[in-house]
Amino acid sequence: MGIRLKENGLQGFITEEELQKQNAQVQQCAGWLESGEAAGNDFLGWVDLPVTYDKEEYQRIKKAAKKIQGQCDVFLVIGIGGSYLGAKAALDFIQSPIYNNLKKDTPDIYFVGNSISSRVLAEVMSLIEGRDFAVNVISKSGTTTEPAIAFRLLKKELERRYGKEGARERIYATTDRVRGTLKKLSDREGYETFAIADDIGGRYSVLTAVGLLPMAVSGIDIDQVMRGAADAREAYGKGTVADNDCLRYAAIRHCLMNKRRDVEILVNYEPALVMFGEWYKQLFAESQGKDKKGIFPVSANFSTDLHSIGQYIQDGADILFETVLWVEQSRKDIFIEEEAEDEDGLNFLAGKSMQYVNHKAFQGTLLAHVDGNVPNVILEIPQADAYHFGYLVYFFEKACGVGGYMLNVNPFDQPGVESYKKNMFALLGKPGYEEMKEGLERRLL
Amino acid sequence: MGIRLKENGLQGFITEEELQKQNAQVQQCAGWLESGEAAGNDFLGWVDLPVTYDKEEYQRIKKAAKKIQGQCDVFLVIGIGGSYLGAKAALDFIQSPIYNNLKKDTPDIYFVGNSISSRVLAEVMSLIEGRDFAVNVISKSGTTTEPAIAFRLLKKELERRYGKEGARERIYATTDRVRGTLKKLSDREGYETFAIADDIGGRYSVLTAVGLLPMAVSGIDIDQVMRGAADAREAYGKGTVADNDCLRYAAIRHCLMNKRRDVEILVNYEPALVMFGEWYKQLFAESQGKDKKGIFPVSANFSTDLHSIGQYIQDGADILFETVLWVEQSRKDIFIEEEAEDEDGLNFLAGKSMQYVNHKAFQGTLLAHVDGNVPNVILEIPQADAYHFGYLVYFFEKACGVGGYMLNVNPFDQPGVESYKKNMFALLGKPGYEEMKEGLERRLL
Repeated sequence: MGIRLKENGLQGFITEEELQKQNAQVQQCAGWLESGEAAGNDFLGWVDLPVTYDKEEYQRIKKAAKKIQGQCDVFLVIGIGGSYLGAKAALDFIQSPIYNNLKKDTPDIYFVGNSISSRVLAEVMSLIEGRDFAVNVISKSGTTTEPAIAFRLLKKELERRYGKEGARERIYATTDRVRGTLKKLSDREGYETFAIADDIGGRYSVLTAVGLLPMAVSGIDIDQVMRGAADAREAYGKGTVADNDCLRYAAIRHCLMNKRRDVEILVNYEPALVMFGEWYKQLFAESQGKDKKGIFPVSANFSTDLHSIGQYIQDGADILFETVLWVEQSRKDIFIEEEAEDEDGLNFLAGKSMQYVNHKAFQGTLLAHVDGNVPNVILEIPQADAYHFGYLVYFFEKACGVGGYMLNVNPFDQPGVESYKKNMFALLGKPGYEEMKEGLERRLL
Repeated sequence: MGIRLKENGLQGFITEEELQKQNAQVQQCAGWLESGEAAGNDFLGWVDLPVTYDKEEYQRIKKAAKKIQGQCDVFLVIGIGGSYLGAKAALDFIQSPIYNNLKKDTPDIYFVGNSISSRVLAEVMSLIEGRDFAVNVISKSGTTTEPAIAFRLLKKELERRYGKEGARERIYATTDRVRGTLKKLSDREGYETFAIADDIGGRYSVLTAVGLLPMAVSGIDIDQVMRGAADAREAYGKGTVADNDCLRYAAIRHCLMNKRRDVEILVNYEPALVMFGEWYKQLFAESQGKDKKGIFPVSANFSTDLHSIGQYIQDGADILFETVLWVEQSRKDIFIEEEAEDEDGLNFLAGKSMQYVNHKAFQGTLLAHVDGNVPNVILEIPQADAYHFGYLVYFFEKACGVGGYMLNVNPFDQPGVESYKKNMFALLGKPGYEEMKEGLERRLL
């Protein structure tokens, strides 16, 4: 039922001995996730979340999702970074990247407030013209610039259209349990609220209300998602690099980094997994990209991108390795039919399924890239369903935490994200940043 | 009217002297694009294309687009790599990334046959249920696996639905002028055909029928696209690294690569430019990623991804540089309004436009990343419209060709793309690959 790590693509790059040598450190780092004895120990709420989650709130999420399904045609999820990537990844993975274009009984779902593009927001306003909509605003503080701008606009539009009473029924706030602007506003206005836990950072929040409410609105079986995560927690809670795939993956990445593989490409063979790659990029970049360290995370969708970055992977500089997400069973398989005249030369595939062809493309690419001096790690995933989404999420979360400790960084902070914000606030003339402003403006001349 | 290169973000990383030192080589390499004296000289058709393009075919493209607009609700563009990236980039850039979801008088457009996912193709089949559709199949040979599988299926569906006659009216083939399976089939069946020139490679083909037909169907003014490209050709046809931004950009990239900046991130601040980043990735990865050389091309959308890979850029390993596409004028600007209670703390922005805020985010990020030891190049683009799309395309095409020659590689071949294909064919049991098959299968055990 779980996922499997395969290493055909590591031969010649890493020896078993090298991996075994990592085991002591891996064990220690994994232990810190349990004991809380290392940096970032106030952000370890995700470790046991799949079993300790708030059951009362969980039932409220399901109930709210049902209500939302009934009250709107368009559901707008406002959030940036960890407040949208996980839910969008789940929606694509389990439903479809073109979910909004497919016939269905559930609302369209758009993720907004994740950029400062007015062009995008203007389009969103045109999308809701003449259609009922509801809003899920996701922000711990309520003051993050991108979502705050979108929420100010959409709240106003809700109140204009439905009145203050009607708007109240259509705003769902996922925010801090007690503090912050958005919590205060929600309490006063009477919005239904869901909690962003104090001990779970944004990039680790997909299995909380942050991710679960949008998932449930789309019709995803969130019980299955949580069951997958719980099973992964169980599976990866014991053992060594010899028999625990999650710890072993952390060790492999660390070894490859030490061999100057500076870039990891998370590869998939299903467009539905593209957003999972975006979720993974935040997870690893924010957790490990600090103190001038870390592997730079990139994602790719094959065979599509074999006709794009494929040439570079095959023959370019030796700075890459690949981690391949291979989904074993396709949702709806299409079979290639025989044609009387074999003009396109595909008749040798007659009777074969596309999934079979995709599998051979995957295997052929693996061997080609290994021959091109690119190490490959494979994760076999039985199906791209709710259960395995939860499973995979936990796999990467834990591997990322362990790997961060192996780098000797705090995997649970993100000090670098503040740098652009401070500069932006100063340049925008935000009160309190006056002194910075002048110096920055001089540098822009 | 053109675009402008700005270098505030290069101070401390590259000196003017270093750039001037590159000039002789840059001039020589740019000269080879004109004279055809270097490798790949049979693929230089793109250099003068903006003025020498086939005017008769160009009129046929416009006429066909009108016909397609009238005959279908859904237009399916079948192609992989250069046969879809340019058109999709244009559609997003000039129209919208959610073009298919917006109200409009033109058909929905989906790009298919660019993966081997049966899940995707099954969804596409559900999208055309009960809706009229037409197909543009784009393939030089007609035998590339991904598009050929999709075309086999969709041709059959067209014939089932509209009969052989009706299907003929709804299939548009962009293919080789004289040779190849698809050309032969098109001639026999009577499909309207458009040419993929012999001297223009896939990744350089966006300004041919490959890109222009889908653009025109969406309602894009392709005259403006071509005019932008022609003006760029004119602007970048003369001068030195001191006054030719295109040559200067090629020199800057080369200098940064020599300083061990192995990864270039093409950054944008408008989600509409995300697919332009994908087009750029193919252009540079296939042109320069060979002989163990080249900069690995990556793209990012800010401020969105500042909450993802932003942490790594700010504080991670020093292997990156950024090239920022900054669009100066937003299409539809939204202004932030004053609120009686300033709970979200945004009132200091009251009366300001989102574009203004986005601009300060861009400037603040630039300075933050420079402080984080990441060189930044800026390209200022007056508007994200058809004219500047054409202009930008030519800018990058030329900079890429020149840069490839500076690396001493052939920028116009892509030998590495064949490696996975050969392995795939062998594993699929394609006649002629029998001997390879056994060896590959042994390695997979």
